Amino acid sequence: MTLIKSWVTSANDADHPFPLNNLPYGVFSIGDDEPRCGVAIGDMILDMPAAQDAGLLGFGDAFDVPYWNDLMDMGPVAWTTLRARLTDLLAEGSKDQTTATPFLVPQSVATLHMPLAVSEYTDFYAGMQHAKNMGAILRGSPDLPANWLHIPVGYNGRASSVVVSGTDIHRPNGQMKAPDADMPSFGPTKRLDIELELGAIVGTGCDMGTPITVDQADEMIFGYVLLNDWSARDIQGWEYQPLGPFQGKAFGTTISPWIVTAEALSPFRAPTPVREKQLLPYLNSTKDGLYDIELEVLMQPAGAETATSLSKTNYNRMYYSASEQLCHHAVGGCGMSSGDLLGSGTISGPTPDEYGSLMEKSWAGREPFKLDTGETRSFIEDGDTLTLRGAARGDGYTIAFGDCTTTILPAHKFPV
Amino acid sequence: MTLIKSWVTSANDADHPFPLNNLPYGVFSIGDDEPRCGVAIGDMILDMPAAQDAGLLGFGDAFDVPYWNDLMDMGPVAWTTLRARLTDLLAEGSKDQTTATPFLVPQSVATLHMPLAVSEYTDFYAGMQHAKNMGAILRGSPDLPANWLHIPVGYNGRASSVVVSGTDIHRPNGQMKAPDADMPSFGPTKRLDIELELGAIVGTGCDMGTPITVDQADEMIFGYVLLNDWSARDIQGWEYQPLGPFQGKAFGTTISPWIVTAEALSPFRAPTPVREKQLLPYLNSTKDGLYDIELEVLMQPAGAETATSLSKTNYNRMYYSASEQLCHHAVGGCGMSSGDLLGSGTISGPTPDEYGSLMEKSWAGREPFKLDTGETRSFIEDGDTLTLRGAARGDGYTIAFGDCTTTILPAHKFPV
Repeated sequence: MTLIKSWVTSANDADHPFPLNNLPYGVFSIGDDEPRCGVAIGDMILDMPAAQDAGLLGFGDAFDVPYWNDLMDMGPVAWTTLRARLTDLLAEGSKDQTTATPFLVPQSVATLHMPLAVSEYTDFYAGMQHAKNMGAILRGSPDLPANWLHIPVGYNGRASSVVVSGTDIHRPNGQMKAPDADMPSFGPTKRLDIELELGAIVGTGCDMGTPITVDQADEMIFGYVLLNDWSARDIQGWEYQPLGPFQGKAFGTTISPWIVTAEALSPFRAPTPVREKQLLPYLNSTKDGLYDIELEVLMQPAGAETATSLSKTNYNRMYYSASEQLCHHAVGGCGMSSGDLLGSGTISGPTPDEYGSLMEKSWAGREPFKLDTGETRSFIEDGDTLTLRGAARGDGYTIAFGDCTTTILPAHKFPV
Repeated sequence: MTLIKSWVTSANDADHPFPLNNLPYGVFSIGDDEPRCGVAIGDMILDMPAAQDAGLLGFGDAFDVPYWNDLMDMGPVAWTTLRARLTDLLAEGSKDQTTATPFLVPQSVATLHMPLAVSEYTDFYAGMQHAKNMGAILRGSPDLPANWLHIPVGYNGRASSVVVSGTDIHRPNGQMKAPDADMPSFGPTKRLDIELELGAIVGTGCDMGTPITVDQADEMIFGYVLLNDWSARDIQGWEYQPLGPFQGKAFGTTISPWIVTAEALSPFRAPTPVREKQLLPYLNSTKDGLYDIELEVLMQPAGAETATSLSKTNYNRMYYSASEQLCHHAVGGCGMSSGDLLGSGTISGPTPDEYGSLMEKSWAGREPFKLDTGETRSFIEDGDTLTLRGAARGDGYTIAFGDCTTTILPAHKFPV
């Protein structure tokens, strides 16, 4: 596939994140107006309820709400129909250019909001290098857990803590215990970390008690966002046995503001790696489930003029795909809902410049790393701004996600 | 407190589950009518939207929806006001008896539905005997995990799998591995189990980033239900390291149909036990957080005329209260929502006749137990019906929950 040219000319730059090939879905507001659905095209946003009201879309009331769940719930045929309609509308030579022009607003004046109402949030652990690194750091051995090559290991997280890029997060308080201490203590985490992930958004659900195949799961996935699964390593380390992460992961999960659809990403599908052990048949699929998406982590301390690139890797490094994860999630009869969010698990490549968490990058603080400012870091300091970036590179065009950015504020005093 | 007499005379029996002192909140339907909010009184249900429309309640549109979340979201003052109004309305000598009588429908003709829309579901592990038993069975030692005496250990579950009593559940398929097998296999669980729990319902939420105290958490809890946290022990055993239970717990969680309010239970408050290690100050509270609620588990095989009582215990056996759990849940900044459901953790007393799971009762199948029919069980067979019961006993009255009952159906064939 090559660039599809738009009459919104800013969209035709080969490096622009939002060409006509992308058409990501977000929610925006201008000034004090109510948030509403919008589609990014070049430097502009198409105001979806306004375009719908003008008769340009033909999509009923799916855009009367400030989230994309109603469209998601309409299913894959509707998704394809809308995308085709938007492509026609915004393509060079469109007969509707004059009518549509008033419904474009500059991204520079818009505030972005959560693009979906998250029903439930599940986080996985599907990166092999990350699993080996965490084993080596936490349990003294890079050997994978016994189930890891058979199960897309996951755990349930908190939907109430998922926020959009640009939302500041306070350093969390919590309970932790130093290895040499007799008693635990309570206070701000000293090991605040990121996890570089891709979030898959379930578009259509499945009923409780109706298992699905991987291919069915693939068709249920509406799109993807960048996802930063904030982690407090000291809180997590003390709490996680025997029932898994809880408060060490509950204070925030940040997603990028634009949902990049599975359809936009389809030219970039990539296979999962050769299996070290054959998967059980229920995890078989006929499609490549990963995507070739370049990813980057950046850190900018308070007062610094530029951010330091900490890591560059690719989503095609993962061992399990989102459709395999979704199938495994539902296979025992767990109902899945439109708006469910699945975190891929931390994406780390084989070398430290590809690690997707600071825990790995600083090897649990034993090997602090340098920023471009000359400062060193093992974990995140108050005032640091962390950014995730992601883009698939096509022939003369780019499908990017928009930055996933968060500034960390000091911990609340407790009791408040 | 003693019995408050009602003009609904069936409510005045000392053993009746739903006297005027109780007034539990549910959702019911008659025939093909839409489900609506109702309050149990004796053998009857007060139709709340009908009573509201007749001007008997003065509560706006809180009952225009088929769940109690709108009332819950109005907060503790509204909860107390409604309860006082209902008590007046249904008490012996009420001036409104004639007006209200047409709005009573017999429970015997009603179908009960989920009383709330569950926002998110969290399950805890707060019973010491259960934690010791599971350690002994699974890890060869009854020693508690290092954090257990300091943290109300919990993990996030699936809200989409929470169903009301009376909903059949299929035996789940899943991945498991026998200890002596080289490879895992996929199929129906062979170790299907219950967990006897009490579910606390969060009535008013708290914003992300705003920690709460235990006393504040106590005021946020609207009421309680019985909760059966269905567990597939072989699936759980294979999957749970290192990130905790996932598909072994995701196929169903059953709650009793009536929300018994914290206010109705207040005469039965009971202290948490003497702490073996002092809790960190953020977990301090000024109120007794447990309740004296007698609990029972019953099993009835297909075709049997009566159920066998497997276990009798009490919620006052727990180590952590729901308000301590809720405080711990929110203390790092995790936002909590109206409609969040918190499972207490399995409630087991010190002897096998008080154990709240079959895993404990049959000691992982090593000690099968007998039913009154003469059959033996280690875990649940297809066709078995499991019931949880709970009641607080007052002076001449009972505050009961209504049965929490489920029949287990055979596993689905996969792929479906």
